[in-house]
Amino acid sequence: MNCIDFTLKDTVKFLKKNSNYIILTHASPDGDTLGAGYALYYGLKQLGKRVEVICPDVIPQKFAYFLCDTDHVSRENAVVIAVDVADKRLLGALQEDFGDTVDLNIDHHVSNARYAKNLYLDADAAATCEIIYELLSALKIKFNDTIAKALYTGLATDTGCFKYSCVTAKTHKIAAALYDYNIEADVINKVMFDTKSKDLLTLERMVLDTAEYHFNDKCMILTITAAMQEKTGCSGPDLEGITEISRSVEGVIAGVTIKQTGSDTYKASLRTYDPLNASEICKKLGGGGHKNAAAVTLCGSLDDVKVKILDAIKQQMEEKHAWTSAAE
Amino acid sequence: MNCIDFTLKDTVKFLKKNSNYIILTHASPDGDTLGAGYALYYGLKQLGKRVEVICPDVIPQKFAYFLCDTDHVSRENAVVIAVDVADKRLLGALQEDFGDTVDLNIDHHVSNARYAKNLYLDADAAATCEIIYELLSALKIKFNDTIAKALYTGLATDTGCFKYSCVTAKTHKIAAALYDYNIEADVINKVMFDTKSKDLLTLERMVLDTAEYHFNDKCMILTITAAMQEKTGCSGPDLEGITEISRSVEGVIAGVTIKQTGSDTYKASLRTYDPLNASEICKKLGGGGHKNAAAVTLCGSLDDVKVKILDAIKQQMEEKHAWTSAAE
Repeated sequence: MNCIDFTLKDTVKFLKKNSNYIILTHASPDGDTLGAGYALYYGLKQLGKRVEVICPDVIPQKFAYFLCDTDHVSRENAVVIAVDVADKRLLGALQEDFGDTVDLNIDHHVSNARYAKNLYLDADAAATCEIIYELLSALKIKFNDTIAKALYTGLATDTGCFKYSCVTAKTHKIAAALYDYNIEADVINKVMFDTKSKDLLTLERMVLDTAEYHFNDKCMILTITAAMQEKTGCSGPDLEGITEISRSVEGVIAGVTIKQTGSDTYKASLRTYDPLNASEICKKLGGGGHKNAAAVTLCGSLDDVKVKILDAIKQQMEEKHAWTSAAE
Repeated sequence: MNCIDFTLKDTVKFLKKNSNYIILTHASPDGDTLGAGYALYYGLKQLGKRVEVICPDVIPQKFAYFLCDTDHVSRENAVVIAVDVADKRLLGALQEDFGDTVDLNIDHHVSNARYAKNLYLDADAAATCEIIYELLSALKIKFNDTIAKALYTGLATDTGCFKYSCVTAKTHKIAAALYDYNIEADVINKVMFDTKSKDLLTLERMVLDTAEYHFNDKCMILTITAAMQEKTGCSGPDLEGITEISRSVEGVIAGVTIKQTGSDTYKASLRTYDPLNASEICKKLGGGGHKNAAAVTLCGSLDDVKVKILDAIKQQMEEKHAWTSAAE
């Protein structure tokens, strides 16, 4: 299918023109896809449109402060918009119904798979909510506390609260503008960044007990066994924060988190710093990802899996002269 | 002593007028006092002044990217400026020499003790670096990468990377302006927020093993024994992050971190959420602090200390009806 690139102006025109919209978020919804989806919903409602927001998965309770019941829009005459959905596979349960019929995709991922009829992509935006902010401004939408909270949530959560390299002057300028509303940013940030369940803290303690260092402490391995997940009831998105621990230790350039996913299957998530390339290491083992964050699923015993991933890391360390000692 | 309140204009005039400046930071220097001190140094150097920056303690290596060797300025004819120093006691080792002779204090702490001859206080500023940014702008200083990095460091570190309630639209606007320079904010943030030593991670693991919950999980206690500090070599400022863990657990409104400071002395740091008041609880035991963060030093065995602090928390929970169950 030929995917047409939209400008801001095209997108504004498109949103004004139609009457019935269905907005889709990606599966395992995060603050950016939900913030973008609901902010766009509130904007389109001001323009008198009928709008339904559909999320393929249950929306975590922590986002409740900017959610609302949306309209029911008949599939037949609706224009379908996907926000922050870089690939139709990320529509999850909605892919079958909507994967090939998205009319407009609004996104900031440089890796966008161009699956929609029209695409408004701004790969320089730190979050899709940055794009939605500009879009609502161009549409002359009257901002309010709820819209501002939704957009701030996306900005903050997609940037690690303004920490990452994707942040630009524009990100901060938009954040500043959102402070004109009563967004209670500190409350949002506490919930998004500084709150974990008692069970997750228990799991973290168990995982820290598994910490192993290799290659002169340049590589760290953490393990999350099935037993740990069962005992604490933590799984899936709960475990994402743990992956960050593996790359938080001074001197570590390869942080590995091995999560048991079956009786003899494991998902190894790799986080790297220069000169290592996580994507290349994982590709060798059959996985893939980005330069500094990649993953691979491996079969065998935990020890087998560790040997495989350590061998691949060691090989690249040697190739890139990241590890010159003969200590291991 | 009569402390005169300066406006921005007064401060600008004062900084233009004199020729020799000594800039003092507070003890246990953080990103804001150092960022403010060095940014002001670079600014005054552009005005052709002789300027020395003096820090009462060794400056952590992680701030090296905006430091430099400063002039040596004779004490006799120097004008003394303290930045981000709310009380002369915070001058630490410099208090004796400079505590009563600070000519100008530039600060953002609402609790400022007004010990200097002149005070430029902006209690609405999220960081002293916010004030220094405005001051350098008013002085028409030419910003560069190093000045921008110093100021960004102060803004980010004093706000938990724009997370806390002290952040305003102005904070984000200044951050946006600093992005005009090559500040490598992601690198700064990685060092300031997401890097810990292997030893500290080991200590965190040991501390998590001590986690105790009380009063229907509304109170959590973590313990850092002297043995743990010895074994890992972590102490002082290293341990600040651990205090945050105690208030990161969902549902906890009283997070206690008990650190052993002598054979039978312990410092209990308390972090609270509404309706609890940490300052009131600690005051009852002879300590003090802020509404949501306070501390007290207690003598006795670890068990004695726990009983004392738990009793004080329980009493306030009952007074404020924060804990109505009879579970403990």
